[in-house]
Amino acid sequence: MQTDIPVTLIDHPGGLTDCPGFATAGVACDIRETGKERLDLSLMVSQTPCSAAGVFTLNDVCAAPVHVCKEILAQSGDRVAGFVANSGNANACTGDQGMMDAKEMSTSAQLATGRGAPFLVCSTGRIGRRLPMGKLKGGIVKAAEKLDDDRESSLASADAILTSDTRRKIATARFQYKDEMITVAGMAKGAGMIEPNMATMLAFLTTNLEANSAELKTVLKEASDLTFNRISIDGDMSTNDTVLLFANGVSGISLQDSAELLAAFKAAVFKVCDVLAEKIVGDGEKVTKLVELIVEGTRTEADAEKVARAVGNSLLVKSSWYGSDPNWGRLADAAGYARVGLDESCFDIHYDDVPALINGRPQDENIPKWKEIVAKKRFRITLNLNQGEGSFRLLTSDLSEAYVDFNKSE
Amino acid sequence: MQTDIPVTLIDHPGGLTDCPGFATAGVACDIRETGKERLDLSLMVSQTPCSAAGVFTLNDVCAAPVHVCKEILAQSGDRVAGFVANSGNANACTGDQGMMDAKEMSTSAQLATGRGAPFLVCSTGRIGRRLPMGKLKGGIVKAAEKLDDDRESSLASADAILTSDTRRKIATARFQYKDEMITVAGMAKGAGMIEPNMATMLAFLTTNLEANSAELKTVLKEASDLTFNRISIDGDMSTNDTVLLFANGVSGISLQDSAELLAAFKAAVFKVCDVLAEKIVGDGEKVTKLVELIVEGTRTEADAEKVARAVGNSLLVKSSWYGSDPNWGRLADAAGYARVGLDESCFDIHYDDVPALINGRPQDENIPKWKEIVAKKRFRITLNLNQGEGSFRLLTSDLSEAYVDFNKSE
Repeated sequence: MQTDIPVTLIDHPGGLTDCPGFATAGVACDIRETGKERLDLSLMVSQTPCSAAGVFTLNDVCAAPVHVCKEILAQSGDRVAGFVANSGNANACTGDQGMMDAKEMSTSAQLATGRGAPFLVCSTGRIGRRLPMGKLKGGIVKAAEKLDDDRESSLASADAILTSDTRRKIATARFQYKDEMITVAGMAKGAGMIEPNMATMLAFLTTNLEANSAELKTVLKEASDLTFNRISIDGDMSTNDTVLLFANGVSGISLQDSAELLAAFKAAVFKVCDVLAEKIVGDGEKVTKLVELIVEGTRTEADAEKVARAVGNSLLVKSSWYGSDPNWGRLADAAGYARVGLDESCFDIHYDDVPALINGRPQDENIPKWKEIVAKKRFRITLNLNQGEGSFRLLTSDLSEAYVDFNKSE
Repeated sequence: MQTDIPVTLIDHPGGLTDCPGFATAGVACDIRETGKERLDLSLMVSQTPCSAAGVFTLNDVCAAPVHVCKEILAQSGDRVAGFVANSGNANACTGDQGMMDAKEMSTSAQLATGRGAPFLVCSTGRIGRRLPMGKLKGGIVKAAEKLDDDRESSLASADAILTSDTRRKIATARFQYKDEMITVAGMAKGAGMIEPNMATMLAFLTTNLEANSAELKTVLKEASDLTFNRISIDGDMSTNDTVLLFANGVSGISLQDSAELLAAFKAAVFKVCDVLAEKIVGDGEKVTKLVELIVEGTRTEADAEKVARAVGNSLLVKSSWYGSDPNWGRLADAAGYARVGLDESCFDIHYDDVPALINGRPQDENIPKWKEIVAKKRFRITLNLNQGEGSFRLLTSDLSEAYVDFNKSE
């Protein structure tokens, strides 16, 4: 993400309304039907119709809201009102009824806010169960009344999409272009199991640039591929994963203004996604360690990705990280079963900057150092296959007993 | 495995010497260097040089003994003396030194037994550490002195290859052909983590038929593909996986005698491998449940395999089995990310024979029945994608907190 314009992540971000021209609300409407007061509905509107783009799960089993988002974006991507999202129920595996409910969720937001343009919809939570439409529609009406561009509403909106997350996930990047401050604000929910039914990640970004849906899609796809698509907690891809980017143009500046602007915007979107992605892994279900896994020296990037995913999703490797055990043997084994033609006599492993294996030979004098590194809350492992120029970075995590305990039943 | 000749698994099998013309020994030589008395070296010889074939791990990172076995079989597959195997040290990731050690292990067995033909070698256990050659060679000498064709030696030999297994794994099949009793005897060690370093499965089979190495290879490959290659505990493929089949011809009957004989032999090898494979999964590390996963109705068998492996290796699915939670939503999600074009509106899921999903619609009236089934120690799940004729069966297991605890450090 090269840019000549300095792009900065701001301290103490405030969520989507860090970006001018958007208003949000987060309310409680008991989607989980437990009778407990918990924020579970998030509404966002742009002051004028905005353009939007989305990146979605590749799972064959797509939740109804994913289908509805795709339809709306295809028909009206350059003119949407905002989004409505709920936590507590994923509206997945719900058949035709689920599709009708997702559409009604969208039109309910339109009715409640009096907007002419359609609302995108997202759901996350338990699957195979119908949305409680009465409660949901009541929540939408309440949220429409509370819409505001203040910080409090914005944080409530960010909290309302959380499920088993333990922390709010927001990030905002800014840069100066001509006389305007351009903002990219984002919020996300993590790949924690839901209720505890299914991992879903949702992310929403807003910007005050003017850009059409196709332009936004290109930038969002590129940033997602480099961030959200390079994180892994348990290797399970959800039915509901969705990332949406909204551009309302209130800065009066068009993305087409210059190549320099495009580069800065790409950098800002990347930075926001990168921070959100790291927050998602760090707050993964019962995760105790965050591991930055870098595979390099493969023949192609695709090979590097195969190796990184084999290692990053290996139960044995993840269990050893949990136990603060460097165990490079398990790394080598997992790298080997990715079957990219690894040659055991010429590959290197580093823990942070400390060599563990050089040309396949253990550097045993460093054992105390590896152990120290793997005991940290965050560390880096680099595998170099010394075959070529391919590389891939995956943010992953350990696997704890608590994960199994947490997910062993509904 | 169609055959007109009845092939039976015998009750109370006795290991490799159930087959005439083979002698075995299992001794303790402290390969683990803990000073504790534990059987860890297994030796087997045929009374006359025999032919042999092997099926090996596909991991790019192959242990030295795998390389040595392949070399010996390529040069002298129709004339080997037997095998020598140790537990406690995998001789993997040990470089040139490891290759020299594996070769020396083979020649030591030859010297100690005075045989002219070479010995195949297998190792299983901790990786990245040199074999304790002094202890190992001492063990080989001791084993050579104890070689016998009695039941006690045979069981000791089966015990000496175990690592974190909790149970001995043996099976024997027999059938009558003309006036001779043809035997296929087998022993295996399971995909438990070793020390607890790496999952390895080893299996050894003996028969008194006469067959050349190429013929044995064909039969063994076919049986392994249908059994050992269709089990999964944690999805981690080892560096040392090896299955060997030895034929000494003492029955005086050649495999080429008739097509009927070939069919019966295939059935016998399949039965022995099938029992051993099921024993391996059932005794997997800290496994509490054995799950027979059948995927059918896919366009191709390869598609069915993709779906079965996605479901059978999903942490979320395995955790829910551990918790006796049917959770078909996680099954559907995992099946969806195998990306074979699953259509959510026309797929079925059964727990044993009880429908959970028909044409994508939950059969909620059966919920109490599913829960009962998933609470059992062994149950079957059938996923039908209703797309075609492809099918695949995978034996898999749950994932327990104890697995993570057991594997969290060396």
